[in-house]
Amino acid sequence: MTLANIGVIGLGVMGRNLVLNMERNGFTVAVFNKTTAKMHEFIQGDAAGKRIVGYETLADLVKGLERPRRILLMVTAGAAVDAVIAELKPLLEPGDILIDGGNSYFLDTERRSRELEASGLWFVGMGVSGGEEGALWGPSIMPGGSPEAWQALAPILQAIAARAEDGAPCVTHIGPGGAGHYVKMVHNGIEYADMQLIAEIYDLLSRGAGMSADQLADVFAEWNEGELKSYLIEITSHVLRRKDDLTGKPLVDVILDEAQQKGTGKWTGQNALDLGAPVPTIQAAVESRSLSAMKERRVLASRVLGGPKPMYQGEVKPLVEAARQALYAAKIIAYAQGFELMSMASQEYQYNLQLAELARIWRAGCIIRAALLEEITAAYRRDPALPNLLLDPAFAQAVAERQTNWRWLMQTAIGMGIPTLALSSALAYYDAYRSERLPANLIQGLRDYFGAHTYRRLDREGVFHTRWNE
Amino acid sequence: MTLANIGVIGLGVMGRNLVLNMERNGFTVAVFNKTTAKMHEFIQGDAAGKRIVGYETLADLVKGLERPRRILLMVTAGAAVDAVIAELKPLLEPGDILIDGGNSYFLDTERRSRELEASGLWFVGMGVSGGEEGALWGPSIMPGGSPEAWQALAPILQAIAARAEDGAPCVTHIGPGGAGHYVKMVHNGIEYADMQLIAEIYDLLSRGAGMSADQLADVFAEWNEGELKSYLIEITSHVLRRKDDLTGKPLVDVILDEAQQKGTGKWTGQNALDLGAPVPTIQAAVESRSLSAMKERRVLASRVLGGPKPMYQGEVKPLVEAARQALYAAKIIAYAQGFELMSMASQEYQYNLQLAELARIWRAGCIIRAALLEEITAAYRRDPALPNLLLDPAFAQAVAERQTNWRWLMQTAIGMGIPTLALSSALAYYDAYRSERLPANLIQGLRDYFGAHTYRRLDREGVFHTRWNE
Repeated sequence: MTLANIGVIGLGVMGRNLVLNMERNGFTVAVFNKTTAKMHEFIQGDAAGKRIVGYETLADLVKGLERPRRILLMVTAGAAVDAVIAELKPLLEPGDILIDGGNSYFLDTERRSRELEASGLWFVGMGVSGGEEGALWGPSIMPGGSPEAWQALAPILQAIAARAEDGAPCVTHIGPGGAGHYVKMVHNGIEYADMQLIAEIYDLLSRGAGMSADQLADVFAEWNEGELKSYLIEITSHVLRRKDDLTGKPLVDVILDEAQQKGTGKWTGQNALDLGAPVPTIQAAVESRSLSAMKERRVLASRVLGGPKPMYQGEVKPLVEAARQALYAAKIIAYAQGFELMSMASQEYQYNLQLAELARIWRAGCIIRAALLEEITAAYRRDPALPNLLLDPAFAQAVAERQTNWRWLMQTAIGMGIPTLALSSALAYYDAYRSERLPANLIQGLRDYFGAHTYRRLDREGVFHTRWNE
Repeated sequence: MTLANIGVIGLGVMGRNLVLNMERNGFTVAVFNKTTAKMHEFIQGDAAGKRIVGYETLADLVKGLERPRRILLMVTAGAAVDAVIAELKPLLEPGDILIDGGNSYFLDTERRSRELEASGLWFVGMGVSGGEEGALWGPSIMPGGSPEAWQALAPILQAIAARAEDGAPCVTHIGPGGAGHYVKMVHNGIEYADMQLIAEIYDLLSRGAGMSADQLADVFAEWNEGELKSYLIEITSHVLRRKDDLTGKPLVDVILDEAQQKGTGKWTGQNALDLGAPVPTIQAAVESRSLSAMKERRVLASRVLGGPKPMYQGEVKPLVEAARQALYAAKIIAYAQGFELMSMASQEYQYNLQLAELARIWRAGCIIRAALLEEITAAYRRDPALPNLLLDPAFAQAVAERQTNWRWLMQTAIGMGIPTLALSSALAYYDAYRSERLPANLIQGLRDYFGAHTYRRLDREGVFHTRWNE
């Protein structure tokens, strides 16, 4: 019997689809699932007739693998990962490679790496983006860990990854330790921001300008032909187009407006606070989901709190065009925040992240894939040490050209009383970033006044304290 | 020799001033400082001739205290607290009370409480706000821990606390475990927001409308006579008035615009993300400080990124009045966010927080003391279970009445390109909170599309998934 090239543990939809993807690309895959029935079901179903071998125990799975063994864990992030690792560890030999393909917290990955590498095993924390379809047909893959482990995995990962238009596979060695999961976390933070920006634009045009789901499906489909071209814009038009089987109404109109979250956006925000990296648009997206989840309170509040009627009175066409430009500009800002966070994290954790490479592997396969990522890749290739995307001349110009429309759209939203936490945070970030002088001097004065926290001066070096009451 | 009523360890300015405050109120205080010279300096200086006894060792300090012993630690939050506790623990007896008066992280306080109470000692995590002056003349005090410990501390704490206009001392038993430090943390988060809102208004009126520091000192002094009356508004006028000894210019104009932070604002934001409590205005304040700290990049960016010239063309008087109303409304929102966070934390950690009591003890002594806190106290007395301050009729009306001016001010700021991350986040929060329907339905549709995350419906119970590609 041939030994398998790789083992996969955990046959949820992501695990199954990655297995099928590997097999389709010529690899023999050994699989295991805690609930054995699920393994048999897969082997007799989608895996039937393919080079996919099911095992009922981890010990047998390990025996069925060529060496060094490559084992991909596709189990729920958290305690389950530690549990499987503990079971596997005694079965493995030095040089074997464990890969965690879930959305693990990057500091957990750092810890696991240290623990396993002390026993001579390699551990790879690997971000995988693209949802079910991506897993099956080509995801964007973000593996961290040692270069040795990357060497052993590259042939498989390069084969199964998505390919960008230039044919390059959407995978690269991200960096040591938890770098892969870190970058995946920020990817998801940007994804939160991207979706919230789209949602606010949708709110403005539907609630504000009275456009129907069908009309908006057309708008997003048209936008997907231009600079906004991206997976999220494309599927937004599909979601808006979809009719509800039960009522015949647009499905979006009957979906409850309580957004859920699974934690990666929150982690991005918390980590950014730790690093002192401003990512207000990502924070706004996470907080907007929390606000949406307070449905009961909002219903109550809507009867108590006054405000303007959201009724746009002007011509719709210029509003739609302003929305398109604002969305593109705000999207640039959201990416600028995420990339600056990664650049600060790279320093803090010594990940040596190559930002151009990160943008490159996000061009296809992942949820935030977008034409914009070609531009970002180009910007970081022009200047790998770019402190912020906004300082790239092309992006500086792109935002500057759209700001008149963007400002007008924000003014209109504020006038109508439609909340745009993410869109307006992006604009405030832009205006703060381009402010040589911010009013933090007053804050420093206040802090020194009540807490003797001292301040620095513009005109000379040193640390100063004023006895304000004298 | 008389035994002292309480011991204080750590003679930084906050520690020294609390000692002097206790002594002035009739208590005998034993003191210790790691660097002995500092203790002697204090004993021979400010403490001379007073009922303050210095000790060179912790063992001697402990012997000099009446029982049960009360020992207040005023050392830097973090490892130093654990170190002092470890040294003290073998010297103490069951029933003795350790109090941590620093800005410790509330989960550290939970841990220390568990550890010490297992040995029969009481541990009180105690927030103290009011800066140096407050410590000396009357701070707002937020002690957590067991009711037994509170009983033993109440006579001292009630004597040294600030008194509100009605004569009530600004101290109360906050709740078990880390509740005191938790509430102090949120107090500081609100303080960050409050200061950032003031700073943005200052920026708008100085950079935008060209008002001088002196003119603005007048404006804030006048505002301090009305509904904005508060310590922070008062000292803002003092800071703006102050001339620099070196140049003769307004001091605020030569202070470097890089705001620093010591962590409590960041913790508030991170904890709010954990609880799913939206506090965008507190987050905006923390992130604005981070943005301000990127001075070099901003200077660079200011030469690259285009935008409107911040030059207000209209009449100044209505702008100042709009600024006043916006500041008051936004301040209400910042407090609403902070109080809602505490109410969610109270559930999560079973702190049983009495929000009216918290507002009551913040009316005097602390940095955020303000006339507004009388109103907040009244609102939570009217309805202790109020889910959000905005749902109180008086506050609902207060914001509603000011929103026209507030919206106009935001539109003006956006038009001038002056960043107002905190002010605009507060308005977006208000508009989101009063939205019966938010666009999170689209987000749920997208999540179900790419990740099969399912959604709920408006019109029927259950959890749904659509096969979007069929």
